[in-house]
Amino acid sequence: MQIRYVIPGPMSDTVGNAEVARREDLLRSWAAPDVELRVQDLPTGPASIESIYEEQLAVPPLVDALPGLEAEGVDALIVGCFDDPGVDALRELARRTLVVGPGAAAMHVASVLGGSFGIVTVPSPTATRKLVLTERLDTRFVDVGLVDIPVLGLRDDVEATFEAMSDAGQALVARGAEVIVLGCMSMAFLEIDHELGARTGVPVVNPAKVALGVAELLVRAGQMPSRATFPPPPKLTNRAGSAR
Amino acid sequence: MQIRYVIPGPMSDTVGNAEVARREDLLRSWAAPDVELRVQDLPTGPASIESIYEEQLAVPPLVDALPGLEAEGVDALIVGCFDDPGVDALRELARRTLVVGPGAAAMHVASVLGGSFGIVTVPSPTATRKLVLTERLDTRFVDVGLVDIPVLGLRDDVEATFEAMSDAGQALVARGAEVIVLGCMSMAFLEIDHELGARTGVPVVNPAKVALGVAELLVRAGQMPSRATFPPPPKLTNRAGSAR
Amino acid sequence: MQIRYVIPGPMSDTVGNAEVARREDLLRSWAAPDVELRVQDLPTGPASIESIYEEQLAVPPLVDALPGLEAEGVDALIVGCFDDPGVDALRELARRTLVVGPGAAAMHVASVLGGSFGIVTVPSPTATRKLVLTERLDTRFVDVGLVDIPVLGLRDDVEATFEAMSDAGQALVARGAEVIVLGCMSMAFLEIDHELGARTGVPVVNPAKVALGVAELLVRAGQMPSRATFPPPPKLTNRAGSAR
Amino acid sequence: MQIRYVIPGPMSDTVGNAEVARREDLLRSWAAPDVELRVQDLPTGPASIESIYEEQLAVPPLVDALPGLEAEGVDALIVGCFDDPGVDALRELARRTLVVGPGAAAMHVASVLGGSFGIVTVPSPTATRKLVLTERLDTRFVDVGLVDIPVLGLRDDVEATFEAMSDAGQALVARGAEVIVLGCMSMAFLEIDHELGARTGVPVVNPAKVALGVAELLVRAGQMPSRATFPPPPKLTNRAGSAR
Amino acid sequence: MQIRYVIPGPMSDTVGNAEVARREDLLRSWAAPDVELRVQDLPTGPASIESIYEEQLAVPPLVDALPGLEAEGVDALIVGCFDDPGVDALRELARRTLVVGPGAAAMHVASVLGGSFGIVTVPSPTATRKLVLTERLDTRFVDVGLVDIPVLGLRDDVEATFEAMSDAGQALVARGAEVIVLGCMSMAFLEIDHELGARTGVPVVNPAKVALGVAELLVRAGQMPSRATFPPPPKLTNRAGSAR
Amino acid sequence: MQIRYVIPGPMSDTVGNAEVARREDLLRSWAAPDVELRVQDLPTGPASIESIYEEQLAVPPLVDALPGLEAEGVDALIVGCFDDPGVDALRELARRTLVVGPGAAAMHVASVLGGSFGIVTVPSPTATRKLVLTERLDTRFVDVGLVDIPVLGLRDDVEATFEAMSDAGQALVARGAEVIVLGCMSMAFLEIDHELGARTGVPVVNPAKVALGVAELLVRAGQMPSRATFPPPPKLTNRAGSAR
Repeated sequence: MQIRYVIPGPMSDTVGNAEVARREDLLRSWAAPDVELRVQDLPTGPASIESIYEEQLAVPPLVDALPGLEAEGVDALIVGCFDDPGVDALRELARRTLVVGPGAAAMHVASVLGGSFGIVTVPSPTATRKLVLTERLDTRFVDVGLVDIPVLGLRDDVEATFEAMSDAGQALVARGAEVIVLGCMSMAFLEIDHELGARTGVPVVNPAKVALGVAELLVRAGQMPSRATFPPPPKLTNRAGSAR
Repeated sequence: MQIRYVIPGPMSDTVGNAEVARREDLLRSWAAPDVELRVQDLPTGPASIESIYEEQLAVPPLVDALPGLEAEGVDALIVGCFDDPGVDALRELARRTLVVGPGAAAMHVASVLGGSFGIVTVPSPTATRKLVLTERLDTRFVDVGLVDIPVLGLRDDVEATFEAMSDAGQALVARGAEVIVLGCMSMAFLEIDHELGARTGVPVVNPAKVALGVAELLVRAGQMPSRATFPPPPKLTNRAGSAR
Repeated sequence: MQIRYVIPGPMSDTVGNAEVARREDLLRSWAAPDVELRVQDLPTGPASIESIYEEQLAVPPLVDALPGLEAEGVDALIVGCFDDPGVDALRELARRTLVVGPGAAAMHVASVLGGSFGIVTVPSPTATRKLVLTERLDTRFVDVGLVDIPVLGLRDDVEATFEAMSDAGQALVARGAEVIVLGCMSMAFLEIDHELGARTGVPVVNPAKVALGVAELLVRAGQMPSRATFPPPPKLTNRAGSAR
Repeated sequence: MQIRYVIPGPMSDTVGNAEVARREDLLRSWAAPDVELRVQDLPTGPASIESIYEEQLAVPPLVDALPGLEAEGVDALIVGCFDDPGVDALRELARRTLVVGPGAAAMHVASVLGGSFGIVTVPSPTATRKLVLTERLDTRFVDVGLVDIPVLGLRDDVEATFEAMSDAGQALVARGAEVIVLGCMSMAFLEIDHELGARTGVPVVNPAKVALGVAELLVRAGQMPSRATFPPPPKLTNRAGSAR
Repeated sequence: MQIRYVIPGPMSDTVGNAEVARREDLLRSWAAPDVELRVQDLPTGPASIESIYEEQLAVPPLVDALPGLEAEGVDALIVGCFDDPGVDALRELARRTLVVGPGAAAMHVASVLGGSFGIVTVPSPTATRKLVLTERLDTRFVDVGLVDIPVLGLRDDVEATFEAMSDAGQALVARGAEVIVLGCMSMAFLEIDHELGARTGVPVVNPAKVALGVAELLVRAGQMPSRATFPPPPKLTNRAGSAR
Repeated sequence: MQIRYVIPGPMSDTVGNAEVARREDLLRSWAAPDVELRVQDLPTGPASIESIYEEQLAVPPLVDALPGLEAEGVDALIVGCFDDPGVDALRELARRTLVVGPGAAAMHVASVLGGSFGIVTVPSPTATRKLVLTERLDTRFVDVGLVDIPVLGLRDDVEATFEAMSDAGQALVARGAEVIVLGCMSMAFLEIDHELGARTGVPVVNPAKVALGVAELLVRAGQMPSRATFPPPPKLTNRAGSAR
């Protein structure tokens, strides 16, 4: 099974190849033995995603990457941003590659583990709140807990980041969250989720691990997204002349 | 008051300048006397929007157009697509221009007129359904009623289009819709909303008229979107170096 | 366009003609140039509305006033109480005059500006909470923030009123409100909404301005409330003999 | 225990004393042995309630009747209209008499009997739909089923009325209703609820029986409505000078 | 009318006959004069119910007791545990005996008394939260307030229990609860509900009193649960051979 | 990784060992290469589960089996009934074995694949409807589609079963279901899910495959259910003397 984790921006340029490789190593360590996992970044797109504006910037390069991934025979593509930018568009366009968003996957898996969840993430949370609404999980959702550190600085002082995440998580637990979801993929690769679970006393759902697991289970079960929800764009299929 | 209606694609190329001018004339006829209204299209973007993929294509040219509109002193920008693509990103970026989406405006105005509404639109409806969810109007929403005619062909045979829209609208009324919302901007400029209201027996909300009215009232009241919901992207404001 | 703002009680007697005139001047300053706006009070009804009981007292004089307003050719009637007393009954009875309630209008316009809202108002809030439910906006609604000053005393010490409203508003923002709605029409005429917006950091929706704007846009668009929701009372239309 | 069932209109004049007495006999036959039950109508108010307008007309005479009932030592007052007009206002005003609305009582009792319910009633249903929303039972509510017979004509041909009610009820059951609620008090006194249950195959909740039962149980348990929800009107309690 | 209150465990062994008799005396004092009320416990089952595991243990002895109760001609069986364990199964199996759960009854009666409610109970609250969801009253539900005293120790120091319940109740009121529901049957027999109401300022709903009242009213109205919701188990009715 | 699929009843006696072995073979074929999967049935419990009563019968033998599975070092236990009987109780009791219910798992995975789902199952659906509510997925849920064949007869004529399931599924799709979930574990082992997907045009989620995949991903991610939701029963942990 071939799974590709796509970072929606030029991380090898902005942060460096080592970080891309580190994430690939971690994902491989979390995968089943028969999974062939690769991480790739994209030539353009935002340096990091901290606004809806940057989410929108990430979509065109994702769309551009899709045909190549399909040609390679990739079974599942994970979009490496918690708010699932581009997932719906990619699902409309994809012919054989399953597209998975870590945000939807993590929130539904959190729902299997407990009665309610909160999301520890970075500002601004509007896109995350809208994802909770479109996943229709708002009645389980306690709130976001915000960590005010730039995404690209989360690893600068992991101890400080951990403390800020603990504070945000504990405040959510005090308000009723029975599960914590990490709402930022850079948090997912800090290797602190189990320690955060010990600190907060509730399960901490890592969206990278869980997106991988959901991709695996859907590929194994032979499942693709519903064409009733994500039909192919009509101008690309029915009539001559594309929209581009 | 200066209001700009922006068509998110190169309509003057694909359909022709006359159609752009016709829409401008209609909008002017619907505006208050002190409104200076102009319609403009964009140099790139999709020929029409019939998929989430095409909505995403429309966002970068909208973002690119914003600084010019702000420099011109435009008070309000109406994004000319019912599903409100790019509205959230534009609101994050805008400093003085109010951004209005016709979909949210039309659904909330429909809610003032009756207890429930249905939306007559073209396939595919997933983006529209998600807008209903993020506007949190799903408990008023009966369903979409689909008219299977390409957007660019809606004016080819207005009589046939009207009949198809009537069928869709009457089916929604039979299922409990007390108001009909037109869910496609090309439908909004067909000048058939009052006739459709007479046929279906319920109010038909025209998203172009209503987006204009909401823009007017917000400008008059001096209201801008909440910065708590739509903060400026941090990398554009707090730190050197843009995400682009 | 003729719009009438009706104060549901004998304000010219209890508070004085000057206050009625002051409100008329403010509304005129907020209206589009082609709007002919008048304010009128009613010969009977409560001195102010601070209970559901008083809301009910306001309805018969509103109903009695309707035929005269229709005969005068009034295009839109705004009921000058936030909880929209009598609006549904008036809509059933009206033949050509559009009836607008400021509460529903303000809450739907607030929904266009941000993700959630709170309402700063005077006790008791049960009617306001029920209006939130019947408008089906409870999933956006944070809570009411109560200012414990009698309605007729709000202007006695505007500074103190402003401070109490700020405290209530800031508490709502701390609990997640991204927009504040003023939930009392006497608050709407204090001319402090923009200052309150500056203090709380979120948009403050003034129900008087917004009800006026919604009335204008609906009249311009030729829209009336749905007869499927508000049919004429059968005994007044189908059979001889009225219910009164 | 003294329970008073108040018909909100001059039924002894419009329909006659015999009908008032018949309803009293039925209610007595449904009550516990220690209940002293009386039915009374009011000197003014609508002949029947088939619109929100008429519901509003019913409130002032109900309010006027309250002090006398309290002086008589009535333990519970049942408002004899399914949509519960005036119940909230009466609860604000009442000092020792419990006020019960048959609509809320019947919908909550229906919820104890099955997973979902539909309401068989007469047009127009908007007030009933709003009651479902304010009782927050909309997720259990299938729909109304309308019987297009004037309220005052329901007993003219009971067989025809029963057939129309059966048709409406069976249609609701086919759409998922697991319980039927009679949504009109004149239907409640037709003595056909058990026959309708046999015909439709689901329990039929009679709002007159159930309002009586809820009044009994609340009086026995010493329960009054929450003063947090229904505080006394401030001008009647705190300050000199009433609103009337 | 014969009503049986069944304690789902061997209370006469674990706590003693006197407590069973005390509860019977209290229930009789709360019943209408024509009610023949008896309390009985069961030979097996948990000593007290403080977990979902113990709720499940309580169901088989309840099921075993049902045929005897039906043979005795019992009109209504009240399951003496707030979370209503076994009520759905018993309703499927019962042929003539009405089965009432105090949790559903108490939450719906609380809904008749005020706009929102909180539940004062003992840990763990997951079963109670799920009952709120299946009763679909979550939009009225503020939260549980937990009293960390073992169920079998609630009467050891009633004063301390009362203070702990008051603290929990007042905290719920501060968070918006307009009614308090006692969420544990051992709390219902402490005879402190009216005192708790005086302390918290809101009505306190006693599930024992209310379950009794709901049972009475349903028996008087001749109502049984919907067979559309609770059909008889097919293997017990249609085919030879039981599942046991 | 050791995963145990537990059939909650004596299937080897009632249906035979061959069927147990057949299900084990299928589950092994669906698992990742490093999963050690075994199926086991229980010495007592219902022959099949077609009622809430039978679900309750299944719980005590499941509880009795848990200590042995924990002693064996089983990583995850899948309860082999769609309505997830006993899952909450087992989660309270389990110390190291993850407990997974196929119903919750299947509905959340269906939510990842499309906007709405329907459930094809056997009567009676009340427990399934309640599971939808406690999973808080009712706003995505279209309805159940019932196949009126006894569970133990589903394999007697697979062609007829397939046609009945297709009819039920197509009816759900016509009412808006964008994904179909199989709501009965005996349906999950019919090996017809992909054929049913082809027939209905939407993804068909197999709860056996998906429960297995969710168990795998949670074990790989080191996740256990929240102790805030499922605390250990206090009498088993804090105090001497068990409830049994």
